[in-house]
Amino acid sequence: MKLAMVGLGRMGGNMVKRLAVAHDIVAYDLDATAGAALAEEFPRVEAAVDLVDMIAQLPQPRVVWVMVPHQFVDVTITGLLKAGMTAGDLIIDGGNSNYKEGQKRGLALAEKDIYFADCGTSGGVWGLKNGYSLMIGGEDAAIALIAPALSTLASNDGQGWGHMGPVGAGHFVKMVHNGIEYGMMQAFAEGFELMKAKEEFDLDMHQISRVWQHGSVVSSWLLDLTGDALEQDNELTALSDWMDDSGEGRWTVNESIDLGIPTPVLTLALQMRFRSREQDAFAGKIVNAMRAGFGGHTIKKVTDT
Amino acid sequence: MKLAMVGLGRMGGNMVKRLAVAHDIVAYDLDATAGAALAEEFPRVEAAVDLVDMIAQLPQPRVVWVMVPHQFVDVTITGLLKAGMTAGDLIIDGGNSNYKEGQKRGLALAEKDIYFADCGTSGGVWGLKNGYSLMIGGEDAAIALIAPALSTLASNDGQGWGHMGPVGAGHFVKMVHNGIEYGMMQAFAEGFELMKAKEEFDLDMHQISRVWQHGSVVSSWLLDLTGDALEQDNELTALSDWMDDSGEGRWTVNESIDLGIPTPVLTLALQMRFRSREQDAFAGKIVNAMRAGFGGHTIKKVTDT
Repeated sequence: MKLAMVGLGRMGGNMVKRLAVAHDIVAYDLDATAGAALAEEFPRVEAAVDLVDMIAQLPQPRVVWVMVPHQFVDVTITGLLKAGMTAGDLIIDGGNSNYKEGQKRGLALAEKDIYFADCGTSGGVWGLKNGYSLMIGGEDAAIALIAPALSTLASNDGQGWGHMGPVGAGHFVKMVHNGIEYGMMQAFAEGFELMKAKEEFDLDMHQISRVWQHGSVVSSWLLDLTGDALEQDNELTALSDWMDDSGEGRWTVNESIDLGIPTPVLTLALQMRFRSREQDAFAGKIVNAMRAGFGGHTIKKVTDT
Repeated sequence: MKLAMVGLGRMGGNMVKRLAVAHDIVAYDLDATAGAALAEEFPRVEAAVDLVDMIAQLPQPRVVWVMVPHQFVDVTITGLLKAGMTAGDLIIDGGNSNYKEGQKRGLALAEKDIYFADCGTSGGVWGLKNGYSLMIGGEDAAIALIAPALSTLASNDGQGWGHMGPVGAGHFVKMVHNGIEYGMMQAFAEGFELMKAKEEFDLDMHQISRVWQHGSVVSSWLLDLTGDALEQDNELTALSDWMDDSGEGRWTVNESIDLGIPTPVLTLALQMRFRSREQDAFAGKIVNAMRAGFGGHTIKKVTDT
């Protein structure tokens, strides 16, 4: 098939590389050098100079995959409409948008009879080689338009994608996927810290990760990544313990609140990321203020630490 | 090599089957039919009628693998000593003992110059086919005695085992492994429940598990098992939500308290198992007593539920 990719960053660029083996791609990015580089490397990739040029190169119904940071999705869709997308065309948001935003976009585009699909994509930079895990939401007719590309992008001979449900369902499932990822990562993190702290055994973190990776119940892709990092440096000296979060963990916990479903592990995993960014936390000062009030307790003052 | 296996239950029996390909095994169980069945199926397995018979069949230094429930390890070791194990011999506890018990056993046996090693074993019933992940603690000389058998038991051409450190280190690492397993399981559990509760999307749990298993960040052996179960029954109708625990999660959380290392996710995963066994929890009654005191809140009485 022939489709367009808007956004040629790390994810979008790699996806074009994987797609270009089997499909014709019109590639566009605000940074014109990104499309030019891909067009030079891959015979089936053409670079577009702007969205109008991009849309003009597509057969109808036009299929455009949008792979931009979530705060730029709406402006990109507006640009696509101005550039001439019309009834029967399909816009896919392949980034990490909130599913509720996707539902709004789907409704707005449906008024123009333009299809919208929301696709959650996992696999990171490994996806280029091994294929991605793709969770897509949208109408059957929309998914049919993009299915050949999904099969190429997906891992394991095209089995790594699925039509989850209506518009919104793709990003919803990806959101929960990331929430689970937070919990799994924090579980490993706590376990490794506990073993590191058991000084009497002088345990080898890298060795443990490798033994576990061969036949144990916790074997996983996350453990594989952890083992790779520990192989480079068993102390992880160059890394700080400041943990960022990219939003989907928060959305998952918000959803648990909306639905009234208990998610203590996913919630605590998120909270520990917040805690990692605190220094001189006010909560700690409050506890110490009370302990000082009790009298007789060891309280560190700022000058002591 | 030639070694003995005491305890021919599901784990011990399967380990004998895997070992018997490359080693001579003297097999013993309180249930005499278990050893007889193995001896009939495998030419290199001989069944012993009791511990004295078993010890008599071993060359020195004798190597005995004990694979019995943790509450029977001490009585088994006492029996082995009475049956004639002597200086230079090796006893391995391959079950799920607390590492502190192993340290005590190691010290007691060291007084008789008998080696002791503690081996944590992961892989469950799949280990027979794919090999186990084995974490062993003990002196170098002790590990050298059992190393050929460990290579046969381990997965991936013998790479699935490692000498973790001194006596106790094997079961310590296995304990933390299981603690992490609790956290990972609860993370998946919460995520799937959240998706199940999102009725508007009518999501297919089995489909999601399969898409995630192909190239996603949460791909893991636990997700593979979950997918297999959902394939049989997407509603898991026959299962209750009452979750047991076998002790190692508690030991992990106790260790975090002893060492002062925060493990909120591993702790909450354990607490959710406790919660799952409660009906009519007193904590809920206490909260409701206070809410009733505030007035104006909906409080269910026992007759309402």
